[in-house]
Amino acid sequence: MDTIDKKKVNVEIYNKTYTIVGTESAQHVRQVADIVDDKMHEIKKLNQSLDPIRLAVLTAVNITNDYIKLQEKYMELEGFMKEKEDK
Amino acid sequence: MDTIDKKKVNVEIYNKTYTIVGTESAQHVRQVADIVDDKMHEIKKLNQSLDPIRLAVLTAVNITNDYIKLQEKYMELEGFMKEKEDK
Repeated sequence: MDTIDKKKVNVEIYNKTYTIVGTESAQHVRQVADIVDDKMHEIKKLNQSLDPIRLAVLTAVNITNDYIKLQEKYMELEGFMKEKEDK
Repeated sequence: MDTIDKKKVNVEIYNKTYTIVGTESAQHVRQVADIVDDKMHEIKKLNQSLDPIRLAVLTAVNITNDYIKLQEKYMELEGFMKEKEDK
């Protein structure tokens, strides 16, 4: 039985409206949408000739790159903590 | 003077070829591209009617959501560490 309360939040990203369905707060969903929108405009500025699909895919690539780097930092910090605990 | 060695890596994401320019290794760029490609196929499976732009934007939204959650976890771990150091 699915008792999780799912919400629908409408957001605007690069001049299109998206309905995001999930358990996150509207505030969180808007924060996420703003980051994607900002990043798309930033990448478009650097390469005016990009079509919208390529622009959106490269935005996803960019954010995934940031994610992997943060994941590495997180694992490093976790490893450092464990090392300290073992001493 | 820009002495940083920039590389060009070609990757395939959702049936299109992208040339990624940057300082990252080819292996890292391919790992990032594979994550984006997998996520796009995953989201497409859940919603067959999505056009490619919406699919790519929603992929970026999805990854950004993961990024923010990891960032919160990172800050929590960092705070926990500082608290321990202060004791």
